[in-house]
Amino acid sequence: METYEQLFEKYKAAFDAALADYLSKITLAPDILNESFRYSLLVGGKRLRPVLMFAAARMLGGKEQDVAPFAVALEMIHTYSLVHDDLPGMDNDDFRRGQPSNHKKFGVGQAILAGDALLNEAYALCFQESRRGRTYLNAAEQICLNAGARGMIAGQAADLFYEGREDAGRSEAEFIVRNKTAKMLVSAVTVPAYVYGMDENIISLLAEYGRNLGFLFQITDDMLDVNGEFDKLGKSVGKDESEKKLSFVRLCGMEECRALAERYCAQCEKVLDVLPFETEFFKETARFVLNREY
Amino acid sequence: METYEQLFEKYKAAFDAALADYLSKITLAPDILNESFRYSLLVGGKRLRPVLMFAAARMLGGKEQDVAPFAVALEMIHTYSLVHDDLPGMDNDDFRRGQPSNHKKFGVGQAILAGDALLNEAYALCFQESRRGRTYLNAAEQICLNAGARGMIAGQAADLFYEGREDAGRSEAEFIVRNKTAKMLVSAVTVPAYVYGMDENIISLLAEYGRNLGFLFQITDDMLDVNGEFDKLGKSVGKDESEKKLSFVRLCGMEECRALAERYCAQCEKVLDVLPFETEFFKETARFVLNREY
Repeated sequence: METYEQLFEKYKAAFDAALADYLSKITLAPDILNESFRYSLLVGGKRLRPVLMFAAARMLGGKEQDVAPFAVALEMIHTYSLVHDDLPGMDNDDFRRGQPSNHKKFGVGQAILAGDALLNEAYALCFQESRRGRTYLNAAEQICLNAGARGMIAGQAADLFYEGREDAGRSEAEFIVRNKTAKMLVSAVTVPAYVYGMDENIISLLAEYGRNLGFLFQITDDMLDVNGEFDKLGKSVGKDESEKKLSFVRLCGMEECRALAERYCAQCEKVLDVLPFETEFFKETARFVLNREY
Repeated sequence: METYEQLFEKYKAAFDAALADYLSKITLAPDILNESFRYSLLVGGKRLRPVLMFAAARMLGGKEQDVAPFAVALEMIHTYSLVHDDLPGMDNDDFRRGQPSNHKKFGVGQAILAGDALLNEAYALCFQESRRGRTYLNAAEQICLNAGARGMIAGQAADLFYEGREDAGRSEAEFIVRNKTAKMLVSAVTVPAYVYGMDENIISLLAEYGRNLGFLFQITDDMLDVNGEFDKLGKSVGKDESEKKLSFVRLCGMEECRALAERYCAQCEKVLDVLPFETEFFKETARFVLNREY
């Protein structure tokens, strides 16, 4: 019997292989686009979204290969959003995962285009998969809706707009997390259910899990940011960029955030208990996110 | 019998109505995203790509409505590329069509997101249309391939990369025009043929017309840029931003460019003569582009 960590690593390895396979089949021109396109995709990361998608495929009785191109597409969309988020005018971050951000390495213009290319090619993959049949087209469309102007991008625009504004409160913070963070996780867990043509009730429960996991993820992320600052400097820091962001930590404080995170984790488990599948991996994921220290 | 100008205006009016209809059905949040998304779409422009798509639909025996959502999607992709092109780090233009560029009006971060949203929602429309059947999916996929990392974005990345480089020559200039400018025009004229399930030979001739029109368009555009500078200042200007760009004008001079443009126009007409349709509108478009003064 594999441990949670072993299963996670197995799905992650399967994804890294699928990504390498995808990249081995395309060579872009000019060279700088070829490099900037690959750079941010290969700089690493937890691969949480692809891992969840593969785990969902297994839970529903299928296998990783059934959804591998969608997993690659979703990670490409996630990656484009990070490349654009790091740009001057957005978060202006020089580093991402300990490496120079895309625009520090290739320049702002090429980083804008690398992000555009990642988004566009993600959908090229989705159109290609849509040829396999109607249920694949349904899955592709959901990825697009959750990533777009009524999904992730809406959350990013609100995140940027409310930065430093004192008049924004709980409902604005919830809008940001529901769209910016949660909807991509909803895609991760629901895509296999769309592909297998499962009924609306199953899809809706999986989406409910994804939404709760998104809130859990963002709240613990914000708490880790605060702790990170404490650790690095030995004391609380002033109002730096990340502290100006509208977050649950800023709104409610650390203690209430811990309680909120526990509530979202419990909600994840409750939703999973209704599903007629072996959901242990997803429960462990929620508990892992709740207790993570990085 | 309608004149060319009347036909052009009729197609343009049909497109503006289709765009207004699309926009009337979506309200985005937050408000700033709703506004920035609409702003650049509604600031105007010739609507050349939608007009060509509608004219192609008519030429092939169909009507505007058959491809209206694709025309809206293509114009959204064109618009996103302009929003991102105008950003600092790219061309850094404060104005577009006589109005403040998106980032001057909404800030750099929101403009990046408005562009991302336009691209993403263009594909949301394409997925929606793909539900109508396999030929629509084929059309959607072509739009995506022509716009992406092996299409328009490749041309933009090369355009940016070769700016100010003395070692770039004719083949690099051709790569830029073929991808950045021509492929979106190829989409414009081939999408109706894909939708109507026409045979490969017809699609390939239409694509050939689109490619030649793209070269004709870009060369005359570069020539007008030079003339614009002459007009504005009464004399030739120094090496400003646009003169550092790799262009046929910089490589061959104005006289050879005029000859080249005439050759591409003749090539457009020659390809059209092989098509078993009434192609006069497309011939007139090529001649209009050749002789335009703006």
